Amino acid sequence: MEKKINLLQNWLEKEQAEVAFITNPENIAYFAGFHSDPHERVLGLAVFSNETPFLFTPGLEVEEAKRSGFNHAIYGYSDTENPFEIITQQIQNRAKSITKIAIEKSHMNVGYYEQLAKSFPNANFIDIENKIQMTRLVKTKDEIKILKEAALLADEAIQIGINEIAAGKTEAEIVAKIDYEMRKKGVSGMSFETMVLTGKNGASPHGTPGDTQIQKGDFVLFDLGVVHKGYCSDTTRTIAFGEISTQQKEIYDTVLKAQLAAIEKVKAGAKAKEIDLAARKIIRDSGYGDYFPHRLGHGLGMGVHEFPSITETNEMLLTENMVFTIEPGIYVPGVAGVRIEDDIVVTENGYEILTEFPKELQYV
Amino acid sequence: MEKKINLLQNWLEKEQAEVAFITNPENIAYFAGFHSDPHERVLGLAVFSNETPFLFTPGLEVEEAKRSGFNHAIYGYSDTENPFEIITQQIQNRAKSITKIAIEKSHMNVGYYEQLAKSFPNANFIDIENKIQMTRLVKTKDEIKILKEAALLADEAIQIGINEIAAGKTEAEIVAKIDYEMRKKGVSGMSFETMVLTGKNGASPHGTPGDTQIQKGDFVLFDLGVVHKGYCSDTTRTIAFGEISTQQKEIYDTVLKAQLAAIEKVKAGAKAKEIDLAARKIIRDSGYGDYFPHRLGHGLGMGVHEFPSITETNEMLLTENMVFTIEPGIYVPGVAGVRIEDDIVVTENGYEILTEFPKELQYV
Repeated sequence: MEKKINLLQNWLEKEQAEVAFITNPENIAYFAGFHSDPHERVLGLAVFSNETPFLFTPGLEVEEAKRSGFNHAIYGYSDTENPFEIITQQIQNRAKSITKIAIEKSHMNVGYYEQLAKSFPNANFIDIENKIQMTRLVKTKDEIKILKEAALLADEAIQIGINEIAAGKTEAEIVAKIDYEMRKKGVSGMSFETMVLTGKNGASPHGTPGDTQIQKGDFVLFDLGVVHKGYCSDTTRTIAFGEISTQQKEIYDTVLKAQLAAIEKVKAGAKAKEIDLAARKIIRDSGYGDYFPHRLGHGLGMGVHEFPSITETNEMLLTENMVFTIEPGIYVPGVAGVRIEDDIVVTENGYEILTEFPKELQYV
Repeated sequence: MEKKINLLQNWLEKEQAEVAFITNPENIAYFAGFHSDPHERVLGLAVFSNETPFLFTPGLEVEEAKRSGFNHAIYGYSDTENPFEIITQQIQNRAKSITKIAIEKSHMNVGYYEQLAKSFPNANFIDIENKIQMTRLVKTKDEIKILKEAALLADEAIQIGINEIAAGKTEAEIVAKIDYEMRKKGVSGMSFETMVLTGKNGASPHGTPGDTQIQKGDFVLFDLGVVHKGYCSDTTRTIAFGEISTQQKEIYDTVLKAQLAAIEKVKAGAKAKEIDLAARKIIRDSGYGDYFPHRLGHGLGMGVHEFPSITETNEMLLTENMVFTIEPGIYVPGVAGVRIEDDIVVTENGYEILTEFPKELQYV
């Protein structure tokens, strides 16, 4: 925890900002180790360039915050107190002159911002979002260990889903079964709404599982992940039910070839766009370019969709221990929807694939 | 839809604001009928005092927005366009001079606000949150019909949970079963994480279901709801497993008496605080005042925790067709946790209780 906070402190010093006030609960969990959803109440972490940080929580949460292991000051407020009076006071206690405050501009709401601006009328506000995103993108060994465990749980969930495939079963029934079995295993939650798509629904990258029944000759697409010790997995596999057509098989093979080619490009020093383009070129060359309408992947960690987007224009250089998904797909209305997705760690000379579930086409 | 938007237009006219730019997806669903989570992309509804509104969505969502029935202009943007350029242009097309912009200050983020402020440097920003909250609080007949259906589904979920009660079963197992059965019934989701609490866990108003096993002589508390046609239910029942002690029974009877007394106070013209105090007085007089640490209830609709809070200091006058929960509780560590919660509609002369599940103490 201290190491992560130190990164922010060094950045604040460089930016000549006296304080950062962080309000995104996921970022607070990352830096302070305290996981909490404050709903309409105020939860904040103040980090200073030259002073000790403090955590600010609703009064009812102070004891839990202490138990979470945050070893600096923790202040609470009751429902009859003005939280920003206490926050202002504590900031002033630590830094006499405030000229620059770092906030998450795409998270902090205007109401909080106006309160801070009123309390510190001479302060400029700068955006700390990018710094936090870059910090979270590069994982520690401990984080990678947890992400691996999360990926293996997703593998199990996919197998549970495959075991349920049968003619006439609906997508929603299989979703319910997967979530139920994962809960029984003690998984605290899925990292997003489990997707099981088949037939026409499978040919949309944004389908919602419903009453569509599985039929022979269709693909069944599973896209799912779990939340495990605060970290997410995100895996997609596409399974054939009964005999499939030559074109369906061709689509599957193209996606798999694209996914493998993209993974082969991963290593420290490569650009994000090279990874995307490796997959996109294969899909374009096969004539399915118009049917791959989304980015190749996204960062993965405490959030299931983290920074960055792996796109064909992203110039970002990959560095060791970044973790993201690689998930090309082809969706041809009336024919097939296929996507294959793994969770990947960048290593010095290549990559580690966290997902272990086989990718050769499976038939049920 | 038009009627709801007209309410905003009239309010804007009164406030002399030319435009409201609404970004909370729940509020957009309420006013425009389009349910969507834009994640990191921009979704907005612009309503004008004297011009026709427009909806702004990510490009991929435009077709779905049209199908949702919103019958004014809908604009989309691609990932390479600046959404606020398009929004600015469309606002300027409708209103030449912009002096006042209404926003949801507790929802809009600083990044969006800065973009609007840059586009309209002469505009003041006012908060539309309270107006929207008051509008949403008073339900239409159609909304009440849906809320009733949602409440009856929650009744079914509670019965499913009760059927699972058995010595040695864990809270998490019963949660998984309830959610699974509701999914199989076609319920799209629970309105919050289903709570099943027993033993020590039940004696905390904020417990998380886990490995605690149900034992004879304990209460089992169920707090749950479903999302049905975009609206939420929220119901709590507490069940006795085997013989319970005299004190446990006394706690249950006190909570039930308090809940019934609060409901009896509900009618158009009453103050919110009178409802809370009716329950709180009974609990205080019985000596358990310190063990009822939360508000009596909260508004209910598209959100499961809507405005207002029913507290002992809320002076708000109730009007017909407001819908909220009434949920007193007593939590004595080591002894018992009991809460009883119904969803209530204010009527001209009293109330309608949406929840139908019996409240006399049930023994399993």
